[in-house]
Amino acid sequence: MTEPRQQRAVKTREAIVYAAATIFDECGYSGASISKIMDHAGVTQGGMYFHFKSKQELAKEVMAKQQEFVDFPVGEPSLQRLIDLTFFMAHALQTNVLVRASVRLAVEQGEFGKPDATAYHEWVGQLSSFLYAARDRGELLDDVDERQFATLLTGAFTGVQIYSNIATGRADLNERLIAMWQYTLPALAPPHVRAKLVLKPYEQRSAA
Amino acid sequence: MTEPRQQRAVKTREAIVYAAATIFDECGYSGASISKIMDHAGVTQGGMYFHFKSKQELAKEVMAKQQEFVDFPVGEPSLQRLIDLTFFMAHALQTNVLVRASVRLAVEQGEFGKPDATAYHEWVGQLSSFLYAARDRGELLDDVDERQFATLLTGAFTGVQIYSNIATGRADLNERLIAMWQYTLPALAPPHVRAKLVLKPYEQRSAA
Repeated sequence: MTEPRQQRAVKTREAIVYAAATIFDECGYSGASISKIMDHAGVTQGGMYFHFKSKQELAKEVMAKQQEFVDFPVGEPSLQRLIDLTFFMAHALQTNVLVRASVRLAVEQGEFGKPDATAYHEWVGQLSSFLYAARDRGELLDDVDERQFATLLTGAFTGVQIYSNIATGRADLNERLIAMWQYTLPALAPPHVRAKLVLKPYEQRSAA
Repeated sequence: MTEPRQQRAVKTREAIVYAAATIFDECGYSGASISKIMDHAGVTQGGMYFHFKSKQELAKEVMAKQQEFVDFPVGEPSLQRLIDLTFFMAHALQTNVLVRASVRLAVEQGEFGKPDATAYHEWVGQLSSFLYAARDRGELLDDVDERQFATLLTGAFTGVQIYSNIATGRADLNERLIAMWQYTLPALAPPHVRAKLVLKPYEQRSAA
Protein backbone atom coordinates (compact mmCIF):
# COMPACT_ATOMS: atom_id res chain seq x y z
CA MET A 1 0.00 0.00 0.00
CA THR A 2 1.44 3.39 -0.89
CA GLU A 3 1.15 6.26 1.50
CA PRO A 4 -1.18 9.05 0.41
CA ARG A 5 0.90 11.76 -1.23
CA GLN A 6 -0.16 14.52 1.13
CA GLN A 7 0.73 12.55 4.23
CA ARG A 8 4.13 11.75 2.77
CA ALA A 9 4.71 15.43 2.01
CA VAL A 10 3.97 16.37 5.62
CA LYS A 11 6.43 13.75 6.86
CA THR A 12 9.12 14.92 4.44
CA ARG A 13 8.62 18.52 5.53
CA GLU A 14 8.96 17.52 9.19
CA ALA A 15 12.09 15.51 8.46
CA ILE A 16 13.62 18.49 6.66
CA VAL A 17 12.82 20.92 9.48
CA TYR A 18 14.25 18.48 12.03
CA ALA A 19 17.43 17.99 9.99
CA ALA A 20 17.78 21.74 9.51
CA ALA A 21 17.49 22.26 13.27
CA THR A 22 20.16 19.61 13.88
CA ILE A 23 22.57 21.32 11.48
CA PHE A 24 21.79 24.87 12.65
CA ASP A 25 22.28 23.79 16.27
CA GLU A 26 25.65 22.30 15.42
CA CYS A 27 27.05 24.73 12.87
CA GLY A 28 25.14 27.99 13.28
CA TYR A 29 23.47 29.67 10.32
CA SER A 30 26.62 30.43 8.32
CA GLY A 31 28.13 26.99 8.85
CA ALA A 32 24.98 25.23 7.66
CA SER A 33 24.27 24.43 4.01
CA ILE A 34 21.27 23.14 2.09
CA SER A 35 23.27 20.09 0.99
CA LYS A 36 24.27 19.19 4.57
CA ILE A 37 20.60 19.45 5.55
CA MET A 38 19.48 17.34 2.59
CA ASP A 39 22.01 14.65 3.49
CA HIS A 40 20.89 14.61 7.09
CA ALA A 41 17.20 14.48 6.18
CA GLY A 42 17.79 11.86 3.50
CA VAL A 43 15.76 13.79 0.91
CA THR A 44 16.46 14.52 -2.74
CA GLN A 45 17.03 17.98 -4.14
CA GLY A 46 13.53 17.83 -5.64
CA GLY A 47 12.03 16.98 -2.25
CA MET A 48 13.91 19.82 -0.61
CA TYR A 49 12.96 22.48 -3.14
CA PHE A 50 9.33 21.42 -3.12
CA HIS A 51 9.22 22.57 0.54
CA PHE A 52 12.01 25.13 0.99
CA LYS A 53 13.79 27.26 -1.58
CA SER A 54 16.70 28.52 0.54
CA LYS A 55 18.66 28.18 3.77
CA GLN A 56 17.14 31.47 4.87
CA GLU A 57 13.60 30.12 4.43
CA LEU A 58 14.53 27.11 6.54
CA ALA A 59 16.04 29.31 9.26
CA LYS A 60 12.89 31.43 9.36
CA GLU A 61 10.74 28.31 9.70
CA VAL A 62 12.84 26.98 12.58
CA MET A 63 12.92 30.37 14.33
CA ALA A 64 9.22 31.12 13.84
CA LYS A 65 8.24 27.86 15.51
CA GLN A 66 10.17 28.47 18.72
CA GLN A 67 6.99 28.83 20.77
CA GLU A 68 5.40 25.78 19.12
CA PHE A 69 8.41 23.62 19.93
CA VAL A 70 8.06 24.52 23.61
CA ASP A 71 5.17 22.34 24.63
CA PHE A 72 4.58 23.63 28.15
CA PRO A 73 1.63 21.79 29.76
CA VAL A 74 -1.45 23.96 30.27
CA GLY A 75 -2.09 25.12 33.83
CA GLU A 76 -3.32 27.98 36.00
CA PRO A 77 -1.00 30.95 35.38
CA SER A 78 0.78 32.26 38.49
CA LEU A 79 4.23 33.25 39.71
CA GLN A 80 5.01 29.58 40.37
CA ARG A 81 4.01 28.71 36.80
CA LEU A 82 6.32 31.45 35.49
CA ILE A 83 9.19 29.90 37.46
CA ASP A 84 8.24 26.42 36.26
CA LEU A 85 8.20 27.65 32.65
CA THR A 86 11.83 28.78 32.90
CA PHE A 87 12.88 25.33 34.17
CA PHE A 88 10.74 23.70 31.48
CA MET A 89 12.57 25.80 28.90
CA ALA A 90 15.92 24.72 30.38
CA HIS A 91 14.83 21.08 30.02
CA ALA A 92 13.70 21.77 26.44
CA LEU A 93 17.09 23.31 25.61
CA GLN A 94 18.84 20.29 27.06
CA THR A 95 16.71 17.71 25.25
CA ASN A 96 15.07 19.22 22.14
CA VAL A 97 17.20 20.12 19.15
CA LEU A 98 14.37 22.18 17.59
CA VAL A 99 14.33 24.48 20.62
CA ARG A 100 18.13 24.70 20.74
CA ALA A 101 18.36 25.59 17.04
CA SER A 102 15.60 28.19 17.18
CA VAL A 103 17.27 29.86 20.17
CA ARG A 104 20.70 29.83 18.52
CA LEU A 105 19.26 31.37 15.36
CA ALA A 106 17.46 34.04 17.40
CA VAL A 107 20.74 34.98 19.10
CA GLU A 108 22.89 34.93 15.95
CA GLN A 109 20.27 36.24 13.57
CA GLY A 110 22.34 39.28 12.66
CA GLU A 111 23.91 36.73 10.34
CA PHE A 112 20.91 36.33 8.05
CA GLY A 113 19.10 39.48 7.12
CA LYS A 114 17.75 42.24 9.28
CA PRO A 115 17.61 41.89 13.04
CA ASP A 116 14.17 40.60 13.98
CA ALA A 117 13.16 40.72 17.63
CA THR A 118 9.89 38.82 17.11
CA ALA A 119 10.96 35.68 19.00
CA TYR A 120 12.02 37.82 22.00
CA HIS A 121 8.85 39.95 21.93
CA GLU A 122 6.72 36.81 21.86
CA TRP A 123 8.44 35.56 24.98
CA VAL A 124 7.85 38.91 26.68
CA GLY A 125 4.16 38.62 25.77
CA GLN A 126 3.86 35.13 27.21
CA LEU A 127 5.85 35.84 30.38
CA SER A 128 3.86 39.06 30.93
CA SER A 129 0.59 37.13 30.85
CA PHE A 130 1.85 34.95 33.71
CA LEU A 131 2.85 38.07 35.64
CA TYR A 132 -0.54 39.74 35.11
CA ALA A 133 -2.16 36.58 36.50
CA ALA A 134 0.26 36.66 39.44
CA ARG A 135 -0.75 40.28 40.03
CA ASP A 136 -4.45 39.30 40.12
CA ARG A 137 -3.62 36.62 42.66
CA GLY A 138 -1.94 39.21 44.88
CA GLU A 139 1.49 37.62 44.44
CA LEU A 140 3.44 40.68 43.22
CA LEU A 141 4.82 43.66 45.10
CA ASP A 142 3.21 47.02 44.23
CA ASP A 143 6.08 48.50 42.26
CA VAL A 144 6.64 45.54 39.92
CA ASP A 145 6.05 46.49 36.28
CA GLU A 146 4.94 43.25 34.64
CA ARG A 147 6.15 44.00 31.11
CA GLN A 148 9.42 45.47 32.33
CA PHE A 149 10.21 42.39 34.39
CA ALA A 150 9.14 40.07 31.53
CA THR A 151 11.57 41.97 29.27
CA LEU A 152 14.40 41.62 31.80
CA LEU A 153 13.63 37.93 32.31
CA THR A 154 13.70 37.25 28.55
CA GLY A 155 17.09 38.95 28.21
CA ALA A 156 18.58 37.49 31.38
CA PHE A 157 17.44 33.95 30.56
CA THR A 158 18.96 34.26 27.08
CA GLY A 159 22.37 35.23 28.44
CA VAL A 160 22.33 32.81 31.37
CA GLN A 161 21.73 29.88 29.01
CA ILE A 162 24.42 31.11 26.57
CA TYR A 163 27.04 31.27 29.34
CA SER A 164 25.92 27.91 30.73
CA ASN A 165 26.16 26.40 27.24
CA ILE A 166 29.68 27.70 26.64
CA ALA A 167 30.89 26.79 30.14
CA THR A 168 29.28 23.37 30.66
CA GLY A 169 27.14 22.48 27.62
CA ARG A 170 24.11 23.55 29.72
CA ALA A 171 24.77 20.89 32.38
CA ASP A 172 24.58 23.57 35.11
CA LEU A 173 21.69 25.54 33.62
CA ASN A 174 19.24 24.57 36.37
CA GLU A 175 21.60 25.77 39.12
CA ARG A 176 22.07 29.05 37.29
CA LEU A 177 18.31 29.51 36.98
CA ILE A 178 17.83 28.84 40.69
CA ALA A 179 20.34 31.64 41.35
CA MET A 180 18.54 33.92 38.87
CA TRP A 181 15.30 33.49 40.82
CA GLN A 182 16.96 33.79 44.24
CA TYR A 183 18.39 37.18 43.30
CA THR A 184 15.19 38.55 41.71
CA LEU A 185 12.32 37.20 43.81
CA PRO A 186 12.87 39.62 46.74
CA ALA A 187 12.06 42.46 44.29
CA LEU A 188 9.03 40.64 42.93
CA ALA A 189 7.03 39.07 45.73
CA PRO A 190 6.40 39.60 49.45
CA PRO A 191 7.95 37.14 51.94
CA HIS A 192 4.76 35.10 52.54
CA VAL A 193 4.44 34.46 48.78
CA ARG A 194 8.16 33.68 48.37
CA ALA A 195 8.00 31.18 51.24
CA LYS A 196 5.66 28.95 49.20
CA LEU A 197 7.54 29.07 45.89
CA VAL A 198 9.47 26.03 44.68
CA LEU A 199 12.71 26.48 42.70
CA LYS A 200 13.32 23.08 41.21
CA PRO A 201 14.44 21.59 37.89
CA TYR A 202 11.61 20.40 35.62
CA GLU A 203 12.44 16.72 36.12
CA GLN A 204 12.04 17.00 39.88
CA ARG A 205 8.84 19.05 39.65
CA SER A 206 7.13 16.76 37.16
CA ALA A 207 8.04 13.68 39.19
CA ALA A 208 6.51 15.20 42.35
CA MET B 1 62.31 60.70 7.44
CA THR B 2 61.15 57.10 7.46
CA GLU B 3 59.37 55.67 10.44
CA PRO B 4 61.37 53.11 12.42
CA ARG B 5 60.35 49.69 11.20
CA GLN B 6 59.22 48.44 14.59
CA GLN B 7 56.95 51.41 15.21
CA ARG B 8 55.39 50.95 11.78
CA ALA B 9 54.78 47.26 12.52
CA VAL B 10 52.94 48.13 15.73
CA LYS B 11 50.74 50.60 13.86
CA THR B 12 49.99 48.09 11.11
CA ARG B 13 49.08 45.47 13.69
CA GLU B 14 46.72 47.89 15.41
CA ALA B 15 45.13 48.85 12.11
CA ILE B 16 44.56 45.18 11.28
CA VAL B 17 43.00 44.40 14.67
CA TYR B 18 40.74 47.44 14.38
CA ALA B 19 39.67 46.50 10.84
CA ALA B 20 39.06 42.90 11.95
CA ALA B 21 36.85 44.15 14.78
CA THR B 22 34.87 46.32 12.37
CA ILE B 23 34.23 43.39 10.05
CA PHE B 24 33.50 40.86 12.85
CA ASP B 25 31.07 43.33 14.42
CA GLU B 26 29.27 43.75 11.11
CA CYS B 27 29.37 40.24 9.63
CA GLY B 28 30.04 37.87 12.52
CA TYR B 29 32.86 35.34 12.35
CA SER B 30 31.57 33.29 9.44
CA GLY B 31 30.66 36.30 7.34
CA ALA B 32 34.12 37.85 7.76
CA SER B 33 37.07 37.06 5.48
CA ILE B 34 40.77 37.86 5.54
CA SER B 35 40.45 39.74 2.26
CA LYS B 36 37.61 41.96 3.57
CA ILE B 37 39.75 42.73 6.61
CA MET B 38 42.83 43.49 4.47
CA ASP B 39 40.78 45.86 2.30
CA HIS B 40 39.40 47.65 5.33
CA ALA B 41 42.81 47.96 7.00
CA GLY B 42 44.48 48.99 3.75
CA VAL B 43 47.29 46.48 4.17
CA THR B 44 48.92 44.12 1.70
CA GLN B 45 48.78 40.34 1.92
CA GLY B 46 52.40 40.38 3.08
CA GLY B 47 51.58 42.88 5.84
CA MET B 48 48.65 40.78 6.97
CA TYR B 49 50.47 37.46 7.08
CA PHE B 50 53.42 38.98 8.91
CA HIS B 51 51.04 39.60 11.84
CA PHE B 52 48.19 37.08 11.49
CA LYS B 53 48.07 33.79 9.65
CA SER B 54 44.33 33.14 9.73
CA LYS B 55 40.88 34.54 10.46
CA GLN B 56 40.80 32.36 13.56
CA GLU B 57 44.01 33.93 14.90
CA LEU B 58 42.49 37.37 14.38
CA ALA B 59 39.27 36.38 16.15
CA LYS B 60 41.26 35.05 19.11
CA GLU B 61 43.21 38.31 19.32
CA VAL B 62 40.03 40.41 19.30
CA MET B 63 38.33 38.16 21.85
CA ALA B 64 41.34 37.89 24.18
CA LYS B 65 41.62 41.67 24.45
CA GLN B 66 38.03 42.22 25.62
CA GLN B 67 39.14 43.33 29.08
CA GLU B 68 41.88 45.59 27.65
CA PHE B 69 39.40 47.33 25.37
CA VAL B 70 37.24 48.21 28.36
CA ASP B 71 39.18 51.06 29.88
CA PHE B 72 37.22 51.56 33.11
CA PRO B 73 38.78 54.36 35.18
CA VAL B 74 40.45 53.18 38.39
CA GLY B 75 38.53 53.81 41.61
CA GLU B 76 37.65 52.42 45.03
CA PRO B 77 35.76 49.12 44.47
CA SER B 78 32.26 49.02 45.95
CA LEU B 79 28.69 48.09 45.04
CA GLN B 80 28.28 51.51 43.38
CA ARG B 81 31.42 50.88 41.31
CA LEU B 82 30.02 47.52 40.22
CA ILE B 83 26.85 49.27 39.03
CA ASP B 84 28.92 51.98 37.32
CA LEU B 85 30.98 49.33 35.53
CA THR B 86 27.86 47.85 33.92
CA PHE B 87 26.84 51.29 32.60
CA PHE B 88 30.42 51.91 31.48
CA MET B 89 30.29 48.63 29.57
CA ALA B 90 26.98 49.68 27.97
CA HIS B 91 28.64 52.91 26.84
CA ALA B 92 31.61 50.95 25.51
CA LEU B 93 29.29 48.66 23.52
CA GLN B 94 27.54 51.69 22.06
CA THR B 95 30.74 53.53 21.10
CA ASN B 96 33.68 51.10 20.76
CA VAL B 97 33.76 48.65 17.87
CA LEU B 98 36.56 46.61 19.52
CA VAL B 99 34.31 45.90 22.51
CA ARG B 100 31.30 45.14 20.31
CA ALA B 101 33.28 42.71 18.16
CA SER B 102 34.87 40.92 21.10
CA VAL B 103 31.46 40.46 22.72
CA ARG B 104 29.86 39.22 19.49
CA LEU B 105 32.68 36.70 19.02
CA ALA B 106 32.34 35.53 22.63
CA VAL B 107 28.63 34.89 22.08
CA GLU B 108 28.96 33.23 18.67
CA GLN B 109 32.23 31.45 19.34
CA GLY B 110 30.72 28.01 18.78
CA GLU B 111 31.40 29.00 15.17
CA PHE B 112 35.18 28.85 15.40
CA GLY B 113 36.67 25.98 17.28
CA LYS B 114 35.85 24.68 20.71
CA PRO B 115 33.69 26.67 23.11
CA ASP B 116 35.95 28.79 25.29
CA ALA B 117 34.42 30.42 28.36
CA THR B 118 37.56 32.42 29.23
CA ALA B 119 36.07 35.84 28.44
CA TYR B 120 33.05 35.06 30.65
CA HIS B 121 35.15 33.68 33.51
CA GLU B 122 37.36 36.79 33.43
CA TRP B 123 34.29 38.95 33.85
CA VAL B 124 33.14 36.82 36.77
CA GLY B 125 36.56 37.30 38.35
CA GLN B 126 36.46 41.05 37.96
CA LEU B 127 32.84 41.47 39.10
CA SER B 128 33.50 39.19 42.08
CA SER B 129 36.37 41.41 43.24
CA PHE B 130 33.97 44.37 43.36
CA LEU B 131 31.50 42.29 45.36
CA TYR B 132 34.16 41.13 47.86
CA ALA B 133 35.03 44.81 48.37
CA ALA B 134 31.33 45.61 48.82
CA ARG B 135 31.14 42.83 51.41
CA ASP B 136 34.08 44.34 53.34
CA ARG B 137 32.30 47.70 53.30
CA GLY B 138 29.20 46.10 54.84
CA GLU B 139 27.11 46.73 51.71
CA LEU B 140 25.89 43.18 51.05
CA LEU B 141 23.17 41.13 52.71
CA ASP B 142 24.39 38.06 54.60
CA ASP B 143 23.18 35.41 52.18
CA VAL B 144 24.71 36.91 49.02
CA ASP B 145 27.27 34.58 47.43
CA GLU B 146 29.69 36.93 45.65
CA ARG B 147 30.81 34.53 42.91
CA GLN B 148 27.33 33.21 42.32
CA PHE B 149 25.95 36.70 41.82
CA ALA B 150 28.92 37.69 39.62
CA THR B 151 28.16 34.62 37.46
CA LEU B 152 24.49 35.58 37.21
CA LEU B 153 25.37 39.19 36.40
CA THR B 154 27.75 38.14 33.61
CA GLY B 155 25.10 35.93 32.02
CA ALA B 156 22.22 38.38 32.52
CA PHE B 157 24.19 41.33 31.15
CA THR B 158 25.14 39.28 28.08
CA GLY B 159 21.53 38.46 27.28
CA VAL B 160 20.13 41.89 28.14
CA GLN B 161 22.53 43.54 25.71
CA ILE B 162 21.79 40.96 22.98
CA TYR B 163 18.05 41.59 23.23
CA SER B 164 18.59 45.36 23.36
CA ASN B 165 20.83 45.14 20.28
CA ILE B 166 18.30 43.15 18.27
CA ALA B 167 15.33 45.27 19.39
CA THR B 168 16.82 48.81 19.24
CA GLY B 169 20.49 48.62 18.22
CA ARG B 170 21.32 49.09 21.94
CA ALA B 171 19.59 52.49 22.10
CA ASP B 172 17.59 51.34 25.16
CA LEU B 173 20.41 49.40 26.85
CA ASN B 174 20.73 51.87 29.74
CA GLU B 175 17.02 51.61 30.57
CA ARG B 176 17.25 47.83 30.51
CA LEU B 177 20.25 47.91 32.87
CA ILE B 178 18.42 50.20 35.28
CA ALA B 179 15.62 47.59 35.35
CA MET B 180 18.18 44.80 35.87
CA TRP B 181 19.50 46.55 38.97
CA GLN B 182 16.05 47.50 40.28
CA TYR B 183 15.00 43.86 40.26
CA THR B 184 18.19 42.47 41.82
CA LEU B 185 19.30 45.05 44.39
CA PRO B 186 16.67 44.10 47.00
CA ALA B 187 18.34 40.66 47.16
CA LEU B 188 21.82 42.18 47.37
CA ALA B 189 21.83 45.12 49.75
CA PRO B 190 19.91 46.36 52.79
CA PRO B 191 17.56 49.37 52.37
CA HIS B 192 19.98 51.96 53.85
CA VAL B 193 22.67 50.95 51.32
CA ARG B 194 20.22 50.86 48.41
CA ALA B 195 18.96 54.34 49.29
CA LYS B 196 22.37 55.83 48.44
CA LEU B 197 22.98 53.95 45.18
CA VAL B 198 22.77 55.80 41.86
CA LEU B 199 21.45 54.01 38.76
CA LYS B 200 22.47 56.28 35.92
CA PRO B 201 23.96 55.95 32.42
CA TYR B 202 27.72 56.48 32.21
CA GLU B 203 27.39 59.83 30.40
CA GLN B 204 25.29 61.29 33.23
CA ARG B 205 27.55 59.91 35.96
CA SER B 206 30.79 61.12 34.40
CA ALA B 207 29.33 64.60 33.80
CA ALA B 208 28.30 64.91 37.47
